[in-house]
Amino acid sequence: MAIVNGLADVVAAETNVSLVDGKNGVLVYRGHFAADLARHERYEDVAYLLWYGQLPSEEERVAFYEEWAQAATLPSHVENLIDQLPESYGMMETLRTAVSAMGEETYSWPASKSQALRLTSAATTIVARRYRRLQGLDPIAPDLSLSHVARFLHMLEGNVPSEAHVAALNAYMILTAEHGLNASTFTGRVIASTQSDLASALTGAIGAMKGPLHGGAPSGVIDLLEEIGSEENAETVLRGKIEAGEKLMGFGHRVYKTVDPRGQALKQITLELKGRDPWFDLANHVEKIAVDLLAEYKPGRQLYANVEFYAAAILKALQFPSALFTPTFSAARMAGWSAHVFEQNENNKIIRPAAEYIGPMPKE
Amino acid sequence: MAIVNGLADVVAAETNVSLVDGKNGVLVYRGHFAADLARHERYEDVAYLLWYGQLPSEEERVAFYEEWAQAATLPSHVENLIDQLPESYGMMETLRTAVSAMGEETYSWPASKSQALRLTSAATTIVARRYRRLQGLDPIAPDLSLSHVARFLHMLEGNVPSEAHVAALNAYMILTAEHGLNASTFTGRVIASTQSDLASALTGAIGAMKGPLHGGAPSGVIDLLEEIGSEENAETVLRGKIEAGEKLMGFGHRVYKTVDPRGQALKQITLELKGRDPWFDLANHVEKIAVDLLAEYKPGRQLYANVEFYAAAILKALQFPSALFTPTFSAARMAGWSAHVFEQNENNKIIRPAAEYIGPMPKE
Repeated sequence: MAIVNGLADVVAAETNVSLVDGKNGVLVYRGHFAADLARHERYEDVAYLLWYGQLPSEEERVAFYEEWAQAATLPSHVENLIDQLPESYGMMETLRTAVSAMGEETYSWPASKSQALRLTSAATTIVARRYRRLQGLDPIAPDLSLSHVARFLHMLEGNVPSEAHVAALNAYMILTAEHGLNASTFTGRVIASTQSDLASALTGAIGAMKGPLHGGAPSGVIDLLEEIGSEENAETVLRGKIEAGEKLMGFGHRVYKTVDPRGQALKQITLELKGRDPWFDLANHVEKIAVDLLAEYKPGRQLYANVEFYAAAILKALQFPSALFTPTFSAARMAGWSAHVFEQNENNKIIRPAAEYIGPMPKE
Repeated sequence: MAIVNGLADVVAAETNVSLVDGKNGVLVYRGHFAADLARHERYEDVAYLLWYGQLPSEEERVAFYEEWAQAATLPSHVENLIDQLPESYGMMETLRTAVSAMGEETYSWPASKSQALRLTSAATTIVARRYRRLQGLDPIAPDLSLSHVARFLHMLEGNVPSEAHVAALNAYMILTAEHGLNASTFTGRVIASTQSDLASALTGAIGAMKGPLHGGAPSGVIDLLEEIGSEENAETVLRGKIEAGEKLMGFGHRVYKTVDPRGQALKQITLELKGRDPWFDLANHVEKIAVDLLAEYKPGRQLYANVEFYAAAILKALQFPSALFTPTFSAARMAGWSAHVFEQNENNKIIRPAAEYIGPMPKE
């Protein structure tokens, strides 16, 4: 039997959760364009959609927001764990360990919606608490009156964030909440397929996201934006790079052979926030010039800004250091991971491929 | 494209680590029959074999044992974590969290042998410490003069274990140290395929092992042995069950269509330990009667004692409560998981299968 290295193109599951249509540049979450959701919904609503299959009614929304906010406060033993990990534990090591430590014995198979809510709500509190501890700052208790995304920013910075920043990060976290059977989501499904619990599945998924081939920070884009620095330098810097044969970081995508719908949606949102943060404006300017130059130098290649390009601009506007990038991405993906675990639970078969032994045989 | 539910028969990797030959009832670890290793080697030597591809030389063995013993002492923050988890955290939740908490930032890609050694050596200390805490007993510090398996028993019970018990558990842990691309090992490889670290891969693998479809305790066999109770009842009880159409727990195996080589090896070892523990003798007697009756009632089916049958007898002889079964199995499998992570690191391709969307489409 042929070896399918990486399992590329092996269809491992049917899914109702999302459609990643690379040919048409479309991303759909349960019948809704992710781009529309990013502009019109709160992150919590999109989590609800991913888990329940439809957006909440007004009444459901009120109850869901309330339960979600309550879950932002960590159990005290998880707070202690975060505070007591030595400094040699970075953000992802801490997130992985703390999510595991959220999963007590009651987290048995099958996963429940309220477990997913608790872990997804708690993830940003874990990230913010550890971030402040590593900075030598006291943690900030979750403000239960804020939205999930605003509360995250408040716990990181200590002040109530601007509407523009909340809108941009909310859109980013919605657009990265789910993306089909990537390595971390697949990890979660393999773990769930043994009838293990949701905390095990999400802990494993975080471990997969920690790998730079999957959850790598868009540091190349940051470097590019920093090198350009101001709008008037954009064309010279970009033209120079293209003529020198350098790849423009943040343009083009393995799956999306045309626009990246997440990049497009974030472009739209940062354009609507024009004048509200200089990084949004710089990114929009750089993107426009880059797309024109790429069309000029590489006609027909269809290279557009991908999600990483705008992610970098938004995280830069939020003054997030690179240590926060993968944890924020992971916190966003908790919703999608959980949705896939529910789906795996519903129609389960243990995931257990074969291997071909190519080692030596014993001498009889 | 057809959906390959569970990925059964999809060959996801070539491996040098082990051959699971179900047709011939053979299990090979890197060119050695696992059954031979179980009788002649210490668990540590088999870990060395799985990781380095050959058994250690005398000189290598001395250094390896020394490093292994040192690694049995947990970092103090991991001890604190184990002690501070509320009682609502069972053994597997604790093992998953503590292994994650072993993996500080230096555990980056690629995995190292000394990381595997540290995590594998520490796993039994974690299990024993938590076990005693949950019993309300003080933990016992690892005795660095003992072998890995003897130290584990000593940390659990507080007295130096008998040679027979050490030999039986050593054999069990060797025979369960590795078994191809099962769900937990595959989980570890998917996580490693993102260039994530060894602690992430093993934490995820523990999460997969926690699921009862994979790491379930052989409680059916225990129930059977307890019901039989003494040798003279064996035939009546077994014949009654077979005639009532009940499945005999501990006989036959999904992969092994003939003898289970692990069951065979453990049978051999418990036969050699005749008279050293009544559970060994009862198991051997029950096995003989059961195999004869199965041949009589189900001719041609080739139903033999599987690894779970003898695992139950050994764990019963050791007076392990069922809460220790899956953690012990997991601690044993740390060696195999690590070997697969090394192999994935060497020739990596991110593991990322496809999914087919069957949900609704947006109304344009």
